[in-house]
Amino acid sequence: MKYVLHNEHIISADDAKVEMNDRGYHFGDGIYEVIRIYNSKPFTMDEHLNRLIESANKLDLNLQITKETLENLINKLVEKNELTDGMVYIQMTRGVSPRNHLYHRTENPILSGFTQKLSTQENQTKQKQGISAWVTDDIRWLRCDIKSINLLGNVIAKREAADHHCQEAILHRDGMITEGSSSNLFLVKDQTLYTHPATNLILNGITRQIVLKLAKSLQFEMVEEAFPKDVIEHADEAFITSTTMEVMPIIEFKGGVKTSLKIGPITEKLQDAFQHYKNDGLSTKPNQS
Amino acid sequence: MKYVLHNEHIISADDAKVEMNDRGYHFGDGIYEVIRIYNSKPFTMDEHLNRLIESANKLDLNLQITKETLENLINKLVEKNELTDGMVYIQMTRGVSPRNHLYHRTENPILSGFTQKLSTQENQTKQKQGISAWVTDDIRWLRCDIKSINLLGNVIAKREAADHHCQEAILHRDGMITEGSSSNLFLVKDQTLYTHPATNLILNGITRQIVLKLAKSLQFEMVEEAFPKDVIEHADEAFITSTTMEVMPIIEFKGGVKTSLKIGPITEKLQDAFQHYKNDGLSTKPNQS
Repeated sequence: MKYVLHNEHIISADDAKVEMNDRGYHFGDGIYEVIRIYNSKPFTMDEHLNRLIESANKLDLNLQITKETLENLINKLVEKNELTDGMVYIQMTRGVSPRNHLYHRTENPILSGFTQKLSTQENQTKQKQGISAWVTDDIRWLRCDIKSINLLGNVIAKREAADHHCQEAILHRDGMITEGSSSNLFLVKDQTLYTHPATNLILNGITRQIVLKLAKSLQFEMVEEAFPKDVIEHADEAFITSTTMEVMPIIEFKGGVKTSLKIGPITEKLQDAFQHYKNDGLSTKPNQS
Repeated sequence: MKYVLHNEHIISADDAKVEMNDRGYHFGDGIYEVIRIYNSKPFTMDEHLNRLIESANKLDLNLQITKETLENLINKLVEKNELTDGMVYIQMTRGVSPRNHLYHRTENPILSGFTQKLSTQENQTKQKQGISAWVTDDIRWLRCDIKSINLLGNVIAKREAADHHCQEAILHRDGMITEGSSSNLFLVKDQTLYTHPATNLILNGITRQIVLKLAKSLQFEMVEEAFPKDVIEHADEAFITSTTMEVMPIIEFKGGVKTSLKIGPITEKLQDAFQHYKNDGLSTKPNQS
């Protein structure tokens, strides 16, 4: 049997229902996090829960639950589902109340969550091959720094990418690259890493932050600046980062930019460094809590 | 007992649950309509259902239900709930499937809906007094022409307005007025009506369309063009339109623009014309179907 999280309970997935009047269902009024599980242990759970709290604060959403309780629930869910390799999804919506744009600060948030198996092996094979990316318009709102469930802009881009046989969509706003539809983009040129700064226009990915830290320790130059999409054509290497994809090379851009690339030495060094960081993190911090 | 709509069934509101894996709950991947009920009859139901179909097409969402079935379900729900004065809300999400940004075109959409009482009397009293509006940034996505449930930008603006003792938020993108957080804005200057054109930046309200039609028949000049927010200070009159508020005068702007106005003769003429249009529509078209 599979289990899911519903408020502070772990219940059978068959009973996983939510109220029709949940503000998450009527307004997308909620936030979420995806936490990677390796060897039955949550990876960078603390960073993800801190970001959940940050998203809640930005949305004036009173979480009413401690980080410790969330950690315990996540660990329990992983255990109950006997998950070794995969991810935990947790979502917090503002609450259940008769539909009204205007929320009240007395709403009681609704927590839900589930686990999903992922194959580390499969992902690492893909990381040796690289993926194709579809370059398209960023039509999302101006608070992409909040990890909210208002994801239609991302959903549309992801479908568009798949329709063009690409695994990810890379977005640009008025010609300036922002990020992927569910990842952050890095370019490499002359040993320097380029990525969009962590403004309101992108989600500051946890893997993005780790990669920046690793790049620093490897003494690579880093430029956090917005760049026009055509710059992609002049890149030596390109990769995206995300919780589920880790450090994933891009070997082909299609759509708004057309170019092919090889998986380069800097991407490979960062992939290696990421695996070491991951193994260190998992061995030194029991349950990451 | 109160009833709600769930797929093609009318069920007790107590049983109104949806699946946790509904794409509406994880991505806000859905659309909706609000239909006003006067004297137990739906008003401009055909126009609303046409727009629902249009939103579905724009989102590549295969409704799998006919307009006739929707009309019947709405009429049945109004009857079951013995609703005389109020509104019907209907929502269609893309379907239930394991969470994945990438949707499949084989999803089965989920219909839900409910009714809510509204007082026509109360609304008409308010229309004689006018409301205050809070002028703030439009942070929404670039497909506001789709009536989707990705409404966080609207929700934030509405809360901000209420925190400043205003009943509606008026949005501007880079200084150019778009619309209200759940309404369309009209300004009047020298007998001419000004409103934002029906582009991707606004929702083309059904009441907006009716008012434009009525204004034409009353031979008012109309300019559908984007205008800078400071133009508000020079307006003779201002009002918003929406399904629930009808033609509602604004007597005060606060926030990004500060000015006071009187309810003017053109607004009043349009209010009158709207009441006539409404009564004609309701008497000549039984059930609006």
